[in-house]
Amino acid sequence: MPEPPAGQTYPGEAQDEKERALAALKQVAGALEVRGDQAGGEAKEILQAQALMAEDPGLIVGVKSLIDGGLAAPRAVFEAFGKYREMLAGVGGYLGERVADLDDIRDRVIAHLTGQPLPGVPAAAAEPYVLIARDLAPADTALLSKDVVAAFVTEEGGPTSHTAILARSMGVPAVVACPGATTIPPGARVLVDGLSGEVRLEPSDDEVSGLVGAQAARQAAIAAVRGPGRTKDGHPVPLLANVGGPEDLDRALVNGAEGVGLYRTEFLFLDRAQAPALEEQEDAYRAVLDAFPGGKVVVRTLDAGADKPLAFLKTSAPEPNPALGERGLRMFKLHPEVMAVQLAALAAAAQGSEAELHVMAPMVATADEARWFAAACRAAGLPSAGVMIEVPAAALRADSLAQAADFFSIGTNDLAQYTFAADRQVGALAGLQDPWQPALLDLIAATATAASDNGRPCGVCGEAAADPLLACVLAGLGVTSLSMGATALPAVRAALAAHTLGECELAAQAARGQQTALHAKAAARSNLPGLSELGL
Amino acid sequence: MPEPPAGQTYPGEAQDEKERALAALKQVAGALEVRGDQAGGEAKEILQAQALMAEDPGLIVGVKSLIDGGLAAPRAVFEAFGKYREMLAGVGGYLGERVADLDDIRDRVIAHLTGQPLPGVPAAAAEPYVLIARDLAPADTALLSKDVVAAFVTEEGGPTSHTAILARSMGVPAVVACPGATTIPPGARVLVDGLSGEVRLEPSDDEVSGLVGAQAARQAAIAAVRGPGRTKDGHPVPLLANVGGPEDLDRALVNGAEGVGLYRTEFLFLDRAQAPALEEQEDAYRAVLDAFPGGKVVVRTLDAGADKPLAFLKTSAPEPNPALGERGLRMFKLHPEVMAVQLAALAAAAQGSEAELHVMAPMVATADEARWFAAACRAAGLPSAGVMIEVPAAALRADSLAQAADFFSIGTNDLAQYTFAADRQVGALAGLQDPWQPALLDLIAATATAASDNGRPCGVCGEAAADPLLACVLAGLGVTSLSMGATALPAVRAALAAHTLGECELAAQAARGQQTALHAKAAARSNLPGLSELGL
Repeated sequence: MPEPPAGQTYPGEAQDEKERALAALKQVAGALEVRGDQAGGEAKEILQAQALMAEDPGLIVGVKSLIDGGLAAPRAVFEAFGKYREMLAGVGGYLGERVADLDDIRDRVIAHLTGQPLPGVPAAAAEPYVLIARDLAPADTALLSKDVVAAFVTEEGGPTSHTAILARSMGVPAVVACPGATTIPPGARVLVDGLSGEVRLEPSDDEVSGLVGAQAARQAAIAAVRGPGRTKDGHPVPLLANVGGPEDLDRALVNGAEGVGLYRTEFLFLDRAQAPALEEQEDAYRAVLDAFPGGKVVVRTLDAGADKPLAFLKTSAPEPNPALGERGLRMFKLHPEVMAVQLAALAAAAQGSEAELHVMAPMVATADEARWFAAACRAAGLPSAGVMIEVPAAALRADSLAQAADFFSIGTNDLAQYTFAADRQVGALAGLQDPWQPALLDLIAATATAASDNGRPCGVCGEAAADPLLACVLAGLGVTSLSMGATALPAVRAALAAHTLGECELAAQAARGQQTALHAKAAARSNLPGLSELGL
Repeated sequence: MPEPPAGQTYPGEAQDEKERALAALKQVAGALEVRGDQAGGEAKEILQAQALMAEDPGLIVGVKSLIDGGLAAPRAVFEAFGKYREMLAGVGGYLGERVADLDDIRDRVIAHLTGQPLPGVPAAAAEPYVLIARDLAPADTALLSKDVVAAFVTEEGGPTSHTAILARSMGVPAVVACPGATTIPPGARVLVDGLSGEVRLEPSDDEVSGLVGAQAARQAAIAAVRGPGRTKDGHPVPLLANVGGPEDLDRALVNGAEGVGLYRTEFLFLDRAQAPALEEQEDAYRAVLDAFPGGKVVVRTLDAGADKPLAFLKTSAPEPNPALGERGLRMFKLHPEVMAVQLAALAAAAQGSEAELHVMAPMVATADEARWFAAACRAAGLPSAGVMIEVPAAALRADSLAQAADFFSIGTNDLAQYTFAADRQVGALAGLQDPWQPALLDLIAATATAASDNGRPCGVCGEAAADPLLACVLAGLGVTSLSMGATALPAVRAALAAHTLGECELAAQAARGQQTALHAKAAARSNLPGLSELGL
């Protein structure tokens, strides 16, 4: 958005110019709210906060007084926002991100006033386009679908970033942490190979048809493998789906999920003034249980805090590092009444259900915490109480935790984030978030071994399970089930079916024997020959 | 500060009232800047940012326009700040902390305008007082000394919080994470026992003299132990000092430090537009080497980022969780020229020095990173290149890292923070930051064993080393030297001298065999009988 000229004046009355400015601010605030309502969930909260900024009384006073001083509305808006911007930037730190929000609003208001097209991600186009950006916020992507976006390429973001997860859930290719991506000119023809991570500018027709043909052959080979998850020699590795809300259930069934390995309950709580009532929760839990009669459904209790703050669940104090704060089970310690209602609703939903309900808590660090949660589950009448293993301390002391909990589910994304002290949201640290890092494989192995020693199941429900090569290694490390975004299930099913458990174990051992993620992945691959045959 | 009455008006001219308001804002901004200049370092930057907020042009426009509308200056200030406050609060998250800064400025300006005493920590009193607060920011404590504050009691904060570290460096008792502390009425007589963590309201004279007498006896017993650090049976455990700037060197020598185990170099870089020149750095490094002829000096390269952002070292992108961001060695990867100058300055300072210089990098996570840093040290002519072990992955893969680095130094504070995914700055999570947590002891043991297997020294330089009981356990885990704030040295020296290495090893084994921090500490204590004799 070009800067309106300095000293720009207006022809008519100050009062008219002020009204014009106010109308534009109001218009932008309203549009952000509408967009938030359409998107729902997390995006809604973010967009509502932005809308609030556009109608900030202090800002409006500033704009009016600059117009009184003779400046035209676009320039007055530009300067008034500039003052706010300075203040936010001056206090530093995370405020940098709020400055970007402010700039976005400013550009939208000026676009309105000057009749220019609105900035941002186009919501529709003649045909699906490749979306290239530095990084994408939930607000940018709230309303996107496969019909709009054919692929994502971002400069920032790691394998577990918002963009990567969104792309996987949409079933479109994404290449993240791609340096120089934003220098690709708009309108260029781009070939995005999500498998190799290659982005080719102006590819030849042969290159395009080669990639498209290879993809079709791969998909046919994968689709030919059916039935429950198991290795070539028949060792069962149940394949389950990660489900974030009712809209994911169909996709899970279509892709042959044997159950739900991670049912995220946040969608029920986001975008609320209060926690939902017991009856409403019970209905939602019954819906997922009814979708898998005879199957296993693992429900994770509310994982509030960190990047998912809830209005009615406050932390004890402001948090300089929300990912290291009072999130997950820690929030339940502050608000035990919210836990009590959720567990009671789960117990009520399980009554008479044909599915097998398991309940687990996020962000458990110690055996004491696991015992506290398991006791609450027992008191609510829930027979199976497990814990997520995503804090390094929990993996290190998995033997103690296995004595306190009925099962484990390893969250590889957060476990990698803490083990390497590398934020999932920082693209520059993507190398440290690589699930092939040998130290992460060590913790997974230790957890699976402790679980097995105590006769407990140990699943994986992080992004790692969705990588066919790594899925085989996880099985080889002793993981007993794999849960992933449903669209990843067919490829993982095919990869497991192409190898014996012994091959998987050898691959796991070879990977752990390496010193870098790159070497670990290469060592695993050379022990799993069936993947190349599948084109994986 | 009471709220100025709504609708409050003024007697004279609007112009005079506006000047009065502007003068108060200017006065407060100036006072904050002066206080920052006096304090220097980190506190200076924080106070300068606050001063900027007080003179924000948008705020001034708001105050003026409210006075034009008829409001008296105090009320106009109150309302104009209120609008900013809403905006900051509206964008959420970490902004809560900036709201507190804004309120602090507002209260100072209103105090000026209404002739009330200024809020904040009193900088002087007739006699030293016990400072009780929810929590303390660097800005609050910038100018405090032992002559002003006799003890600290805070509701928030863990054992490694700013308050706890400050208190230890001042040599005054502190009780942190003390619920209900702020309900103690001002002027009450309070007995603070830093050892037991007890805070007694209106103690009897007997209680006071009992505690004071016990403390004197303890200090005499401790002061009687002299010489280098060693166990009762003569196993050497060199006792070194953590040094944050030239002002700490005297205290290190007075307390019998055998060298410096952690020389933090941040003080040279803070509060600068550019990194200091090679010559200036060389002089600073030579000063610490000259203070310990024949001794060992371990210098940590610049640990920028996280809670110590530097103006001239930007991260790749804004960081939602700075503690998990591009800090420590990661920042050197972005700015290798800053590393090159620091290493060259260290090599130059070591020329002809009688001290033994060792250089180590913070936030190393992988063997690759350790190799990269060690190669840079070798290229600069530095013979000894080590790494901090403070990221769980580094401890898990200590064997690989020991092949790449010459020595280890375990930073227990950050290692606990990441291992338990529990922010050091969040008091409510203090239990998870407890260095007695068995999972943390496991990682220390693994690191010390890997170091020993590879013939490498392995020190500890986190707060854990300053606890006499834990210091014995660390020696028993195989740690080869201990570095701490200098005032903690005498008690640790006495504790080690009271036990054999075998007793320390048994205590360490007993602690690791427990499931909770509380049990681990109790198990260690029952194996180290000499501590009670010393009153520790």
